[in-house]
Amino acid sequence: MTTVDTPDTPFALVDAEKLDRNAARLREHLDRLGVPLRLHVKTAKSVEVADRVHAGGPITVSTLAEAEHFAAAGYTDVLYAVGIDPHKLPRVAALLRRGVTLTVLLDSLAQARAVTRFAQEEDLRVPALVEIDCDGHRGGVTPADPSLTEIGRALGDNLAGVLTHAGESYFAHTSEALHASAQNERDVAVAAAEVLRAAGLPCPVVSVGSTPTAHAATDLSGVTEVRAGNYVFFDLVMAGIGVCSTDDLALSVVVTVIGHRHEKNWVLTDGGWMATSRDRGTQAQAVDQGYGLVADVHGTLIPGLLMTGASQEHGVLSTRDGKPVPELPIGTRLRILPNHACATAAQHERYHVVSGTNPSVDTTWSRLRGW
Amino acid sequence: MTTVDTPDTPFALVDAEKLDRNAARLREHLDRLGVPLRLHVKTAKSVEVADRVHAGGPITVSTLAEAEHFAAAGYTDVLYAVGIDPHKLPRVAALLRRGVTLTVLLDSLAQARAVTRFAQEEDLRVPALVEIDCDGHRGGVTPADPSLTEIGRALGDNLAGVLTHAGESYFAHTSEALHASAQNERDVAVAAAEVLRAAGLPCPVVSVGSTPTAHAATDLSGVTEVRAGNYVFFDLVMAGIGVCSTDDLALSVVVTVIGHRHEKNWVLTDGGWMATSRDRGTQAQAVDQGYGLVADVHGTLIPGLLMTGASQEHGVLSTRDGKPVPELPIGTRLRILPNHACATAAQHERYHVVSGTNPSVDTTWSRLRGW
Repeated sequence: MTTVDTPDTPFALVDAEKLDRNAARLREHLDRLGVPLRLHVKTAKSVEVADRVHAGGPITVSTLAEAEHFAAAGYTDVLYAVGIDPHKLPRVAALLRRGVTLTVLLDSLAQARAVTRFAQEEDLRVPALVEIDCDGHRGGVTPADPSLTEIGRALGDNLAGVLTHAGESYFAHTSEALHASAQNERDVAVAAAEVLRAAGLPCPVVSVGSTPTAHAATDLSGVTEVRAGNYVFFDLVMAGIGVCSTDDLALSVVVTVIGHRHEKNWVLTDGGWMATSRDRGTQAQAVDQGYGLVADVHGTLIPGLLMTGASQEHGVLSTRDGKPVPELPIGTRLRILPNHACATAAQHERYHVVSGTNPSVDTTWSRLRGW
Repeated sequence: MTTVDTPDTPFALVDAEKLDRNAARLREHLDRLGVPLRLHVKTAKSVEVADRVHAGGPITVSTLAEAEHFAAAGYTDVLYAVGIDPHKLPRVAALLRRGVTLTVLLDSLAQARAVTRFAQEEDLRVPALVEIDCDGHRGGVTPADPSLTEIGRALGDNLAGVLTHAGESYFAHTSEALHASAQNERDVAVAAAEVLRAAGLPCPVVSVGSTPTAHAATDLSGVTEVRAGNYVFFDLVMAGIGVCSTDDLALSVVVTVIGHRHEKNWVLTDGGWMATSRDRGTQAQAVDQGYGLVADVHGTLIPGLLMTGASQEHGVLSTRDGKPVPELPIGTRLRILPNHACATAAQHERYHVVSGTNPSVDTTWSRLRGW
């Protein structure tokens, strides 16, 4: 029998009980609001995870490699939610010709014209959403920007709707701020859709989402789909803004104690940044969790202990308050709960899967990488 | 013909001319000092790179997966330079039985006893180095620590020597500080070897190294090998401490412009932290290079432009001084020069290889991942 003590460390561990609980919570919330989920697969990048929480449903991807991989696994409604580089359109066309509804994203006339020209040349419809900026976080046009309708017109019958992402919600600090961010995300997306419709253009899709806003939203009228992905695993950044508790974190990295520096109050492990990533997403939060919190191998947090340092294949554990680190002999296995599940998961090729505190590893799930 | 404009972005690019120049520089320096190199393969993790700069020579690895991979490619003298987790000894034994001289590292009596017990049970010699702490950076025992000879005795005939790594040299700020770090690294390692020898124990191996100290050393008397790995690619952290110039950086990430936010003075690309890593190693240096400097697709730096922000698949480029970003239309390809080559390379499955400013991609080189 394979248990959490069997594979060589470091390795990525998923608690399927927590994954299921996280999935059920958002599903029930969105069911109450009457809006379907378009799962973002960029966090887990695993067909097994997607099948478990969202079998065959509409998905969001962050790379064309994900689109191709999930299409091969039977996911035929796919949104590629990164502004399209025209160079990549041949791969989009190949998926469309295989019967996959692959929708692209853009926020400029240059992209809209490139998509339209390509669609004409290929005699294809390339469904495209216009990216809307709701909070200045990244790309997109605002509803008030005249280029919104120009882009819509330039897309011709490729225009499929609008999309926005409240990226600033990751920096919200209160439930009021999260709720306001969710309401703003919905309001801006719906306003953009109305601008297109007022110009006589179709806007069937009104797509919003982020893990924080998906959970905080109470009004999604006019919205046709919600995107979220991180929530399947959650992480310390999400716990830090109150979207989940640390008990909800379904992903961890199992590491082994390989040394001690008593005079520095350090425990050294074989899990460095190659295993956790360099993500320090809690650094700017109220509580800086270093490279992650530390639990025993069964998942019970060890109070006050955190991963404070990382080199490529070494982790340094120490205490937040300077109290002596607990007795953790050479060979002790521990779990590191990560800052940012998307970044930590990306360091691994597969997940070992347990259910709750049962140490038996039920199975492994695959993970995709690359572009 | 494949050129730098052919593969879909983002992808990792290596300039073989710079790689060769970097390799020749260190080889000539160590030849002058009369000490052999034990190449650390953890940066490139590529047999093609190792074959090119160090064909078949002694190597250092950071994971047993690297040891197994390079052994299969003909590298038979391998040092695993992370403190040994006793759980991993069966994989060490399997390599030893295949005729690979696999040397392990440790810094505690608990590990020494575990290695000795395992070696006896398996009827094998498991060569082991004692890790010496020369600058308080990570693990190891100091030469003055009585446990050094206790560990040496506990190893019996598995004792192979001592190893130290001047990890603090990455934070040196002047050539004097680098030179002092290199001298200290050599002095502490030799002192530790003398402690063992004075106790009647053998110490054939005296291993030192880091990319900064390997280049700064002027006296390696008593040292039997120098470890370095990052120097094959170099990076902005190394340029920041003066070990190389930005013109020596052999690794970059090719990205494509996918958008603009003129009012924010941003250019958006399709290369986010998934392509560059989250490493912000220059953050604490005199000049913070963000997520990296920006060059045109042929490698010429664009003055003042840097990658200031990253989400998973989006990069944000902006200027250091607030001057307007240059005209970079949608579809423009750029190179991002990374903070930390080890971390950035780890995000990629392969390297596309060019030579100097010739845009033709000669070949691709593979890369290993995992543990």
